[in-house]
Amino acid sequence: MKAVVHVFLKPGVLDVQGKAVENALHGLGWSNVDGVRVGRVITFDLGQDDRASAEADVKAMCDKLLANPVIESYRVDLDA
Amino acid sequence: MKAVVHVFLKPGVLDVQGKAVENALHGLGWSNVDGVRVGRVITFDLGQDDRASAEADVKAMCDKLLANPVIESYRVDLDA
Repeated sequence: MKAVVHVFLKPGVLDVQGKAVENALHGLGWSNVDGVRVGRVITFDLGQDDRASAEADVKAMCDKLLANPVIESYRVDLDA
Repeated sequence: MKAVVHVFLKPGVLDVQGKAVENALHGLGWSNVDGVRVGRVITFDLGQDDRASAEADVKAMCDKLLANPVIESYRVDLDA
């Protein structure tokens, strides 16, 4: 089973990387671009097929390693 | 119109960050995890509503700023 994890800074947290990208896009002439947020996406093969336990495993991975739950939120998508 | 851009290293390119995450997951006890790839995801509001020109704009942004076309590939999703 494949997992796709999206990790983003929580809405209240200043996204400096996103701000830098936004400024660069404005500088390149795309002045209407707004609200740029930059996150990480992590894809992997879980090596197991049980959906419920896969979901629990990926959530544990996120809390322990893939995301910083203090300032980041994550979304898990599982794909058979 | 909202844009979501996924940027990944091309398949042949060694993903050292993904490898590091994979080793860490193995160390934490998830030894079946395989093929970890880490990419970036960039979301923003385009400030325009014409789909065709939005798509062309985002592709130009990717080639100029958001991705390194030599070693990275990208996928664009537009959402009204």
